[in-house]
Amino acid sequence: MALPKRLLEEKLKSFIEEDIGQGDLTTLSTVPSGVTAKAQILAKESGVIAGVEEAQILLESVDLKTKLFIKDGAKIKAGTVIMEILGDARTILMVERTLLNIVSRMSGIASETNKLIKKIESAGYTTKVASTRKTAPGLLYFDKKAVMIGGGDTHRLHLDDLILIKDNHLKIAGSIVNAIKNARQTASFTKKIEVEVTTSADAVKASKTGVDIVMLDNMTPNQIKETIKKLEVQKLRSKILIEVSGGITEENILDYAAAKPDIISLGAITASPRSLDISLDVVEVVLRK
Amino acid sequence: MALPKRLLEEKLKSFIEEDIGQGDLTTLSTVPSGVTAKAQILAKESGVIAGVEEAQILLESVDLKTKLFIKDGAKIKAGTVIMEILGDARTILMVERTLLNIVSRMSGIASETNKLIKKIESAGYTTKVASTRKTAPGLLYFDKKAVMIGGGDTHRLHLDDLILIKDNHLKIAGSIVNAIKNARQTASFTKKIEVEVTTSADAVKASKTGVDIVMLDNMTPNQIKETIKKLEVQKLRSKILIEVSGGITEENILDYAAAKPDIISLGAITASPRSLDISLDVVEVVLRK
Amino acid sequence: MALPKRLLEEKLKSFIEEDIGQGDLTTLSTVPSGVTAKAQILAKESGVIAGVEEAQILLESVDLKTKLFIKDGAKIKAGTVIMEILGDARTILMVERTLLNIVSRMSGIASETNKLIKKIESAGYTTKVASTRKTAPGLLYFDKKAVMIGGGDTHRLHLDDLILIKDNHLKIAGSIVNAIKNARQTASFTKKIEVEVTTSADAVKASKTGVDIVMLDNMTPNQIKETIKKLEVQKLRSKILIEVSGGITEENILDYAAAKPDIISLGAITASPRSLDISLDVVEVVLRK
Amino acid sequence: MALPKRLLEEKLKSFIEEDIGQGDLTTLSTVPSGVTAKAQILAKESGVIAGVEEAQILLESVDLKTKLFIKDGAKIKAGTVIMEILGDARTILMVERTLLNIVSRMSGIASETNKLIKKIESAGYTTKVASTRKTAPGLLYFDKKAVMIGGGDTHRLHLDDLILIKDNHLKIAGSIVNAIKNARQTASFTKKIEVEVTTSADAVKASKTGVDIVMLDNMTPNQIKETIKKLEVQKLRSKILIEVSGGITEENILDYAAAKPDIISLGAITASPRSLDISLDVVEVVLRK
Amino acid sequence: MALPKRLLEEKLKSFIEEDIGQGDLTTLSTVPSGVTAKAQILAKESGVIAGVEEAQILLESVDLKTKLFIKDGAKIKAGTVIMEILGDARTILMVERTLLNIVSRMSGIASETNKLIKKIESAGYTTKVASTRKTAPGLLYFDKKAVMIGGGDTHRLHLDDLILIKDNHLKIAGSIVNAIKNARQTASFTKKIEVEVTTSADAVKASKTGVDIVMLDNMTPNQIKETIKKLEVQKLRSKILIEVSGGITEENILDYAAAKPDIISLGAITASPRSLDISLDVVEVVLRK
Amino acid sequence: MALPKRLLEEKLKSFIEEDIGQGDLTTLSTVPSGVTAKAQILAKESGVIAGVEEAQILLESVDLKTKLFIKDGAKIKAGTVIMEILGDARTILMVERTLLNIVSRMSGIASETNKLIKKIESAGYTTKVASTRKTAPGLLYFDKKAVMIGGGDTHRLHLDDLILIKDNHLKIAGSIVNAIKNARQTASFTKKIEVEVTTSADAVKASKTGVDIVMLDNMTPNQIKETIKKLEVQKLRSKILIEVSGGITEENILDYAAAKPDIISLGAITASPRSLDISLDVVEVVLRK
Repeated sequence: MALPKRLLEEKLKSFIEEDIGQGDLTTLSTVPSGVTAKAQILAKESGVIAGVEEAQILLESVDLKTKLFIKDGAKIKAGTVIMEILGDARTILMVERTLLNIVSRMSGIASETNKLIKKIESAGYTTKVASTRKTAPGLLYFDKKAVMIGGGDTHRLHLDDLILIKDNHLKIAGSIVNAIKNARQTASFTKKIEVEVTTSADAVKASKTGVDIVMLDNMTPNQIKETIKKLEVQKLRSKILIEVSGGITEENILDYAAAKPDIISLGAITASPRSLDISLDVVEVVLRK
Repeated sequence: MALPKRLLEEKLKSFIEEDIGQGDLTTLSTVPSGVTAKAQILAKESGVIAGVEEAQILLESVDLKTKLFIKDGAKIKAGTVIMEILGDARTILMVERTLLNIVSRMSGIASETNKLIKKIESAGYTTKVASTRKTAPGLLYFDKKAVMIGGGDTHRLHLDDLILIKDNHLKIAGSIVNAIKNARQTASFTKKIEVEVTTSADAVKASKTGVDIVMLDNMTPNQIKETIKKLEVQKLRSKILIEVSGGITEENILDYAAAKPDIISLGAITASPRSLDISLDVVEVVLRK
Repeated sequence: MALPKRLLEEKLKSFIEEDIGQGDLTTLSTVPSGVTAKAQILAKESGVIAGVEEAQILLESVDLKTKLFIKDGAKIKAGTVIMEILGDARTILMVERTLLNIVSRMSGIASETNKLIKKIESAGYTTKVASTRKTAPGLLYFDKKAVMIGGGDTHRLHLDDLILIKDNHLKIAGSIVNAIKNARQTASFTKKIEVEVTTSADAVKASKTGVDIVMLDNMTPNQIKETIKKLEVQKLRSKILIEVSGGITEENILDYAAAKPDIISLGAITASPRSLDISLDVVEVVLRK
Repeated sequence: MALPKRLLEEKLKSFIEEDIGQGDLTTLSTVPSGVTAKAQILAKESGVIAGVEEAQILLESVDLKTKLFIKDGAKIKAGTVIMEILGDARTILMVERTLLNIVSRMSGIASETNKLIKKIESAGYTTKVASTRKTAPGLLYFDKKAVMIGGGDTHRLHLDDLILIKDNHLKIAGSIVNAIKNARQTASFTKKIEVEVTTSADAVKASKTGVDIVMLDNMTPNQIKETIKKLEVQKLRSKILIEVSGGITEENILDYAAAKPDIISLGAITASPRSLDISLDVVEVVLRK
Repeated sequence: MALPKRLLEEKLKSFIEEDIGQGDLTTLSTVPSGVTAKAQILAKESGVIAGVEEAQILLESVDLKTKLFIKDGAKIKAGTVIMEILGDARTILMVERTLLNIVSRMSGIASETNKLIKKIESAGYTTKVASTRKTAPGLLYFDKKAVMIGGGDTHRLHLDDLILIKDNHLKIAGSIVNAIKNARQTASFTKKIEVEVTTSADAVKASKTGVDIVMLDNMTPNQIKETIKKLEVQKLRSKILIEVSGGITEENILDYAAAKPDIISLGAITASPRSLDISLDVVEVVLRK
Repeated sequence: MALPKRLLEEKLKSFIEEDIGQGDLTTLSTVPSGVTAKAQILAKESGVIAGVEEAQILLESVDLKTKLFIKDGAKIKAGTVIMEILGDARTILMVERTLLNIVSRMSGIASETNKLIKKIESAGYTTKVASTRKTAPGLLYFDKKAVMIGGGDTHRLHLDDLILIKDNHLKIAGSIVNAIKNARQTASFTKKIEVEVTTSADAVKASKTGVDIVMLDNMTPNQIKETIKKLEVQKLRSKILIEVSGGITEENILDYAAAKPDIISLGAITASPRSLDISLDVVEVVLRK
């Protein structure tokens, strides 16, 4: 996931517009025109940095120069300078908050995602960590890209991507078997099909009917283990991927990993992210016209 | 802060569009057309609900009917039904996630804001709680409105609103006195002027030069107390409002309130909100054509 | 694939705006205001009708009433009335051409798609017919939906959907095996991976490395048959879907179907469609104010 | 017809956005960042090329360099290299399909338009060939410009341009004479007025009432000849332009030209164009960072 | 010129959005929700009213009801109630200023246009009054429609409409004859061609070369008379329309009309309009919930 | 008030698009491609120039070079060259009218604002001159910035800015005291509160209740003087700013200034501006390719 610079610019500029209204009155009345300044983006706490590419595109799109010291995905300590900005002082101050809001949110998401992955890897498991569609409205691209930079799986990006049959669909469709069959018949051959189940019986039924992925929703680690065992007994395990979701937190994630699903997905990664503390500091006035 | 329905619709529909891509393939292949369903929005944890108005506008803008049980700002318990939705089943499922993402985020922000306010009020203080410009990009309206619903102060809404002179402005402008004078001269008579200071000497200097609000940035509660005392001695206290900001958390907020500033502002309210757990459940198929 | 009414309206209205400029001067100067008319959409040649849903949304979005006689996907004869329109005469005439341009193009695509499918089915084959990304710019939704209504497979909808490694990718990536491995490692578990090959050796290599779909590009029917045989010998055939593409026309499509690939895809369906001849006729002036 | 580069960019970028979704996953996972490549746009069949200017604007708007070998309107043979592209390999691959879809469609339209014109010229006639409003929705600019490049007349561009009174207008307006008079009275002096007729009597009536252009709709070549004769007899021929339309194809166009109207217009030029076969080939990896 | 309601709504709503920012704080804090009010649009000076249709579309697009007492184009006295508005009091107050800004500007333009026309008619001349392209940026539709309502000629609406060769074109093109010939050869048969000249010699030259309209630019009434006489002598007068422009005001317009051109055009009508004084008054609180 | 270049470009380009339609047919048919020209923007009457910054941004956004001789706010004589433009001749001619429409309107507003200010200053008063919300729809930024350049006060920029309680609010709110109290309680501490009154009694009442600004609406100079006297007597004058509005013109403004309010605001500055006469002249053809 990465859009070319020229396609991302408009969205980034719309963020600045939202903040700026008819103009940054403070900057216009206290900072003279014609001043060239140097500023630094500084991480004030440790974490995995994301949003560097977006920051660079935003800055260049308003004619500021950038010098990167840190790449997206780097694990850094508090005090690290992420990038340097050179250009018109007024413009730097006008975009400062928007810029930081993007990088702080993305870095917060990447850091949390990465922490979960490291915890699972350290315990010797290979389960992947995935995000869900619980992103901030309008920020799908940024939230999903931050997950990817943190090492996570983006999961589906649109409702026209993967077919994922959930409880509300089943309440109306009735039978899980029919729902899967209908989906198989309607869907393009280019799509995978996933179904959400809450019992091991349904997991077996779904696997037999023919899906690519089974999501075990809101099951305990023990229920997950038993379900996987049943699938192995019936030689269905290797035909599908198993995703588990619901009620999983940083505290209990290893219990779920121990059940050996293929993927663990958590809504909180993008729905309740803690922003990383990042600041912009003017460090030098380079030129006054 | 509240935009008329017709002005908010487009933004809300753009959120659905971001999620839906070329169509919700799952719903189209498992839910027949012509089904009318009833669904409920259910709070799965307690908190202050926000986003009800936005949810209603979103739902009505795609021709679904709503029945509200809870108003914005209500403090509710887990298990409370917030609203009922009646209409085309496919449409309900297509907008479900976007709808929940809005209400969960806004309710999370309102709940956290309200918790801080209650804490201050319970301790007998009258200090206001305010948000900052650390909102999610593109979500200014939603984040600020959630703060307001939670009982907080929205602070400025655009950079063309209040004049707020911060450290980076001063680094370039040089003297705090000159910066204030320039701002006073340039700004419309309709604007207030605020300046951020880090020493009590600067607080006094700013108040004498003539500002409406002084922000004491990153001071300890003791430093704040001393600064306020100095201002009182010089008979400047009553001429200005005092805002404190920086390093304030749910844990230490009462220490700051005890110093008796007029306003305490916290970036975390909107920058690191925890979404409230809210779900949408189809409860009845009303009609099948 | 089907977007809810309210999400499609804006795009449809932008089509009218492109045509109308500052107003339909002819209608305004010859048709009095306040006239209510009835009009019919009439198929002037036989074919599979598509775009009825879009026509209805367009008409209702400008406050005209519609009565449908024909559903999307129906096979009709020349002279069939597809729908009736009732409402303000000026509005009917202002949107007439835009409306017809949509329905004619979509019906043309659906008809051609369906003709190919029927030809294959009549010959007793089960091969699917798919479209490609050779759609008219800006009309992806309409072109792909028309293919679907005609019975075809829409293939991928965005570049963020299926991973499809083509010749230009391989020219830069170098080895086909590495390209597939890199894709497998980077891609979300929700995506399928397809690779385009031009030799049976590469088809075998790709299948062994692990892809979901192999596209045999620009091969003759004989080469396709031999490739499939090799894959069967190596027990790889059942693990993958086989798509063939390149140089396939209405004339030679049965030769390709006889080679028994899973999917035949043709760019011409959407790149060179013949519009169906459809007209709008005012049939009655219902009311003059 | 030609919009300045900066006004066309947005529309061209919206076409790429439609195709790309959240990113070109294939390219991102198989083509390393930092690769500079050279590619060629190659005509795989002969025809009149159109869309070169649009291709160049599109490519430059995403920071790729172009070198043109062929100009819009050139008649070329299969195998001709139209332009060379130099720049970031990922970007080239991300825009490839959108680029080709534009150039192929425009070149197809220009080629067909030009073929008709050459046929008429070769037979010694001077009749112009014009397109109609049967363009692809959203592609008015591209379709009309392709017609112009092929040597055809674009006809009116918006409904606020020429006044063109057609059958549906007359059904409501009643009398052809009144309709023309109303139009003449309402229309700006900057507009021409055209009326569509189906009988020679109406052609005479319209010419007498005072129009600039008469369209003979769905008449046979003989009926057209007779109508023109009548107009000549009444000394009306020189006061108007005569356009013929309806049922005209490549096969029968000379019969119509022989009747000596001023303009022959055909909807099929833009409504049912055959795309020219054009491809993009990466020919060299210039640099790997 | 009149766009259908649904196409005008978006533009009108964008005007409200520009004014409203994140919400009408005054109304929200002083007017309770749930109040239904009746308001009147009142003309506080006499003139020709324009913008009624736009006002109605704006009001209905935010769910307010309207009752019209006056139609576009009516000549009214000070004190006349133009329309009554019924609906949500908050919404009425939020859109009040935007609404008045539109109606006041359009009525001002219509009134001034009409005054000029009446002056010419009273003096017994038949010369038309036309506007130019000196409209307020973004308000082309509104300015031109107001001219039309006032009885004036809208002149061309876009640069793709009439061909109008002006002095700057001629400075580069060189010869006026060549410029006209090139335009005639390039332009669609659906377009008229006009050329701006400053001498009677050029007027004759242009008319001989073949144009539809000659604009006599910045000539005195006497020069215009002489030029027209020369054209009559050469039997060219009846073949063209004559437009005069430059330096014409309300004071001297009859001198120009006396020279008997076909059209007099004035930039000031739309470039320097005086807004009509129109107000909105809440006249009754109908309901409080 | 001043938006960064990159944020203003889109709006400026939308103005060109409105005018240009599908292309500037005159320029394309009379001016050859590849011509580089030099042009001048020339003031044809004296005044205060505004819009230079916007003109420069517009021109650079379509790749034309500019050389400024005059800055925004300069008082110039007729005949002054404001800027020189160098670049593609076709592009210069395509944007000419839009460019002039912006600069002429802004300069007209700045000139009129400045004339009023100079009049007040010459008479020895210090009263400020302010604009109102009577701006042209869609042109808020341009109209307000022109006022500022002319030396005037922009007043509030959005409805989410200053709280300004007017007559229609009071008709529904009932008591002026309650309205102010409600506003005070609801509004952010960052906002000022203003109330419009028509009697001196209300002016006193409002000042006592606690507002920042009192607007004396439609009072005579004498009534204003008396009201100010009453406020002074009650020691309220120094706590508030006094704005007067309604019925003030260039003729009577000194009578109002003599009453010594803080601010005089006039709707006519932006609602009925006279455009300054400014032209663009091609002065040299620099290069023909």
